[in-house]
Amino acid sequence: MIKIVVDAMGGDNAPAEIVKGAVQALGSDKDLKVVLTGDKEKIGQTLSGLSYDKARLEVVHCAEVITNDDAPTLAIRQKKDSSLVVALKMLKEDEETQGFVSAGSTGAVLTGALLRVGRIRGISRPAVCPALPTAKGGKVLLIDAGANAECKPVNLCHFALMGTAYAKAMGVKEPRVGLVTNGTEDHKGDPLHQEAHNLLKTLPGIHFVGNVEGRDIMSGDIDVAVCDGFSGNIALKTTEGTALAVMQIIKENIMGSFWAKVGYALFMKKAFKNIKRVMDYSKYGGAVLLGIDKVVVKSHGSSKADSICASVLQAKAAVDSGLVPSIKEMLSETDLEAIGAEG
Amino acid sequence: MIKIVVDAMGGDNAPAEIVKGAVQALGSDKDLKVVLTGDKEKIGQTLSGLSYDKARLEVVHCAEVITNDDAPTLAIRQKKDSSLVVALKMLKEDEETQGFVSAGSTGAVLTGALLRVGRIRGISRPAVCPALPTAKGGKVLLIDAGANAECKPVNLCHFALMGTAYAKAMGVKEPRVGLVTNGTEDHKGDPLHQEAHNLLKTLPGIHFVGNVEGRDIMSGDIDVAVCDGFSGNIALKTTEGTALAVMQIIKENIMGSFWAKVGYALFMKKAFKNIKRVMDYSKYGGAVLLGIDKVVVKSHGSSKADSICASVLQAKAAVDSGLVPSIKEMLSETDLEAIGAEG
Repeated sequence: MIKIVVDAMGGDNAPAEIVKGAVQALGSDKDLKVVLTGDKEKIGQTLSGLSYDKARLEVVHCAEVITNDDAPTLAIRQKKDSSLVVALKMLKEDEETQGFVSAGSTGAVLTGALLRVGRIRGISRPAVCPALPTAKGGKVLLIDAGANAECKPVNLCHFALMGTAYAKAMGVKEPRVGLVTNGTEDHKGDPLHQEAHNLLKTLPGIHFVGNVEGRDIMSGDIDVAVCDGFSGNIALKTTEGTALAVMQIIKENIMGSFWAKVGYALFMKKAFKNIKRVMDYSKYGGAVLLGIDKVVVKSHGSSKADSICASVLQAKAAVDSGLVPSIKEMLSETDLEAIGAEG
Repeated sequence: MIKIVVDAMGGDNAPAEIVKGAVQALGSDKDLKVVLTGDKEKIGQTLSGLSYDKARLEVVHCAEVITNDDAPTLAIRQKKDSSLVVALKMLKEDEETQGFVSAGSTGAVLTGALLRVGRIRGISRPAVCPALPTAKGGKVLLIDAGANAECKPVNLCHFALMGTAYAKAMGVKEPRVGLVTNGTEDHKGDPLHQEAHNLLKTLPGIHFVGNVEGRDIMSGDIDVAVCDGFSGNIALKTTEGTALAVMQIIKENIMGSFWAKVGYALFMKKAFKNIKRVMDYSKYGGAVLLGIDKVVVKSHGSSKADSICASVLQAKAAVDSGLVPSIKEMLSETDLEAIGAEG
C-alpha cells in the first residue's frame, strides 16, 4: 500500500476537481491510499456526492491556502497551516507517505519541496521534468523545464543523470540523452552549453547522443532532452503554443470548406477528440520535480479530475519504480569530480 | 525596376529549383530583375526548358560553391569566385541591386553579409528574423532566431527596434513587441533578460507589451517576439518540430480509424494540403537578416522553386517598403545611450 498526499486546495479548479480526481485514482488502484489536505468542509461537500473506499481516504484539515499571488518563500515560511505546507510536512515526516501531488503555484510547490522536504544529497538544483508526446508515439522527458533560469554545467549533468533514471523507471532500457542547443555540431551554444557538452560526453551512466535542436525534442529520436531552465521553459511552452496554433489552423481550414466540414461531422470527430487528448499533454498528468528526496508531481494549474487522477497514478508509479532510490544510486556511482564537473 | 541577386548554387536543390523559383518570381512581378550567380552551364540547362522575359534575367558565372562543410569565415575570405561571394559583392557595389536571396549555409550567408556588405551603422549584431503563422491567421516576427548565441541587453533593444521597423514595413500599424522569457512577470529571466526588460520598458519608438512565454509566440497577441539568439533558435526549431509531430499524430489517429480514413479520402485531402502548406512555413519563404545594410533573405536549405519564388518576392517587398532606410531612421531617432543601453 502506497500513500500519496494531495494538496486539495491548489489549482484553478480546487477543491472540487482535485477531490474528484483523487477519488478516481483510488478507484483505479487498490494499492493506493490518498490523504487530502485542505478545507475539511469544502472537501466534504464534494466527497459526500461520491462513493469510494473510505478506509483508503483521509482528510487533514488546514485553514490556509497559498495562492499564485503569494511570494513563494514567504508563503511557505508563514502559512504553516496551508494545504501545501501541511502536505509537504507529512511527505517529509511520515515514512508511509511517499508521494505528493499539487496543482498549485509552481513557485510555491518548488520552494516548498526544497525547504520542507529537501534535496537528494549531491543534487544542488532540483529540476522540473514533464513528459511530452513524440511523433513516433512515445514520450520524451524535458529537463529542466523551468526551475532554474540560471544554470551551471554541473547542473546540466545532474539533469542528464536524473532524466536517465526517470526514463529507466518508465521502462526505457537505454535512454538516449540529447543536449538542446542552437545546432547539432559539438561546438554550438554559449559557454554554458559548450562546457556541458564536453562534460556529458564523458559522463558515465548516461547514453549521450550529442547536441540536438528544438525540432528534435518531439521527434522520437531522443528520450531525455537536457536544457537549462530558461530555454527549457521556452521550449516547453513553445510546444504548447504551437500545438494550440496548429489545432486552430486545422480547425479553420476544415470549417472553411463545406466538404471538409461534412467529412469532419460524419467521420472524424472521434479521431480529433483523441488528437486533442494527446496534444493536451500540458493539462494531462504532471511534471515530476526531480532532485527532491521524495516523489513530487506538479499538475497543471488548470487540471480537472482526469488530470489529477493521472498525476496521482503517476506519483504512485514513480514510487513503485523506485525513482528516488535510483537517482541516489546513479549519483553514488558517478564521480562528477573525476570528469571535472564540480567546483 | 528592382534588381534582386540570387545565389543559384546555395541549398539542397541547387541550382535547378533555385533557377525555377527565380523565373517563377519574374513571371509574377513585372518590376523585378533577377541576377543569378553560379555555374553558367548548369543554370543554362534549367533555363533552356523555361520561358521567361530574357531582358530581366542575367546570369553571372562563378566557378566556386560554398557548401555546408566549409568553415564560413574562411570560405568567404578564400572562395572569391563563389556564387555567394560574387552575389554579395554585387549587392554591396551595384546601386541598382538592392536585395539578395540564398538557400545556402546560414553561417556562410550571415558571415558573408557581415564581411562583404556590412552592418547598418549603430547595429552591432545583425539578427535572423523569420515570420511564423499565428493562431489568429496573421504573422509574428521572431528576432533573433539564431545569429547570436550570446547577447547583451543592448542587442535585444536593437532586435526590438528592427523587428518593429520590419513589422511596420509589412503593414502592421503599431507592432506589439514581447520579450520571450520563462514567465510573464517583469522580474522573470536571467540577468540578461531582466536588464533587457527594463530597457525595453523605456525604449522610445516601440510598443512593448512586456514579457511573454513560449506559448504566446504564435498566439497572435504579439507581432514581434524578441529573443536572444540561443533561446530564439530553440523556440523557432521547437515550433517546427512540434508542428511536424502534431501532423504525424493527427495522421496516425486518422489512419488508425476506418471511418476517419474514409472521411479523409472523401472530403478532407484538400483541407490537409492547405494546412500542410501553412505549417510548412520553415520551408516557405525565408528569414530576413536584419541589421545588414541591404536586404538579405535566407531561404530554407531544402527550398524548392515555390519557396525561392516566395523569398525573391519577399526581398523585393522589403526593398519596396524601404525596410533598410526605416531601420536607419528608427535608430537615428532613438537615443540608446540616454536610456542606459550602451556601454
